[in-house]
Amino acid sequence: MERLRLTIQYDGTFYAGYQVQPNGNTIQAEIEKALGKMHKGHIVKVTASGRTDAGVHALGQVVHFDTPLNVPLENWKRALNPILPDDIQVVSAERVSSDFHARYDTTGKEYRYFVRNHKDPDLFRRHYTHHVRADLDVEAMMRACQYIEGKHDFTSFCSPKSDVKGSKVRTIHEASVTRQESEIIFTFRGTGFLYNMVRILTGTLLEVGRHEREAEDLTRVIEAEHRDEAGNTAPPRGLFLWQVYYD
Amino acid sequence: MERLRLTIQYDGTFYAGYQVQPNGNTIQAEIEKALGKMHKGHIVKVTASGRTDAGVHALGQVVHFDTPLNVPLENWKRALNPILPDDIQVVSAERVSSDFHARYDTTGKEYRYFVRNHKDPDLFRRHYTHHVRADLDVEAMMRACQYIEGKHDFTSFCSPKSDVKGSKVRTIHEASVTRQESEIIFTFRGTGFLYNMVRILTGTLLEVGRHEREAEDLTRVIEAEHRDEAGNTAPPRGLFLWQVYYD
Repeated sequence: MERLRLTIQYDGTFYAGYQVQPNGNTIQAEIEKALGKMHKGHIVKVTASGRTDAGVHALGQVVHFDTPLNVPLENWKRALNPILPDDIQVVSAERVSSDFHARYDTTGKEYRYFVRNHKDPDLFRRHYTHHVRADLDVEAMMRACQYIEGKHDFTSFCSPKSDVKGSKVRTIHEASVTRQESEIIFTFRGTGFLYNMVRILTGTLLEVGRHEREAEDLTRVIEAEHRDEAGNTAPPRGLFLWQVYYD
Repeated sequence: MERLRLTIQYDGTFYAGYQVQPNGNTIQAEIEKALGKMHKGHIVKVTASGRTDAGVHALGQVVHFDTPLNVPLENWKRALNPILPDDIQVVSAERVSSDFHARYDTTGKEYRYFVRNHKDPDLFRRHYTHHVRADLDVEAMMRACQYIEGKHDFTSFCSPKSDVKGSKVRTIHEASVTRQESEIIFTFRGTGFLYNMVRILTGTLLEVGRHEREAEDLTRVIEAEHRDEAGNTAPPRGLFLWQVYYD
């Protein structure tokens, strides 16, 4: 047996999320189905760096699995991509040590959130951007980002549906906002993220961008440690799991 | 009654094409359904500048129709977009004279064709680009474009399934190729286009780009006036009806 790590891209639009669940097609189920075909019907379980919700995309999701097959490393991508759906594709495959764990070994993650900021929607980007008509104040949102960076208890930015029992302290190394023509890109890079955290951070920053909330208000929201103090949860379609870090 | 002209965008991925047909959902059917709702169930027929095939997109399709409704011009877009599917949207509405005809009055059209030229596919652009792995020679394709520009009989670039009975002489004002990072964009602007013409032109240029055909060969292909002399028909997904011109 050897352990492999795959980097995966997917368009989450038509999936019920990453993780296998009784009703609904999922990214994980599709990957395991493709690996099952390669293993002549034997069940191959994959473990991901973490879940993504329905409609959320990934550019660099990471999964690991064990295989008895003796396949040259460069052939895994070539063999899997044609049998995977065209909205899930392997970017690369690497051999890892047998104690590597895609979830427990992560040292950090980067997410990006894309907003279309224009009076009209862009229907060709409708699955990959959240459309905001009102002109957003990027400078104000950048100022608010400064309060997000650092080590904080992010309870205010965690869905009450979260099953995290332990600490909600996380370190955010980068929170930033840039405009590229009609799109505004939010980048969040940190040691870890709570359930819906990026979408709640983005929803709160969008309120700052619309002048419904002061940038300086973020300090109070963080200190409150209560979900009600933060803004709305931005919709899933604008969110990308961009990269997962390991040592 | 007054006659209106709508400029329409659509993502053709999930449609059987523009024109109403017995089996399959079409762009025209969706537009007429939305107009029917606005007209309390009365049938409103629309006439387009021309059809587009299944999977082909439009940034600037134009249609006209007659209406007895007394709706301020700026409200048509606002009323129609929420009842149209989110992959078909009205860009603008204009009042035109009662003898305006979206098809007969066109003085020209512009099409663009998008190719992803990279060893890996971009799954987020899979519905809007044709993926070509082999490194394409843009300079050679640009040279070939010079032979396309001008007034020619384009029989070699017309699908044999075409029902055009008359002349296949058309004037192409612009045929050009540009590279933008991993995408190659083909632009064709002219007085009119035959059935599948842009896709056959693109397929032929791609053979030049892959060095399977010389740029200078285009002269011979045009003069042959026979479909077999041109290259393959490029797939629909990369094609956009970009703009329709009127006097």
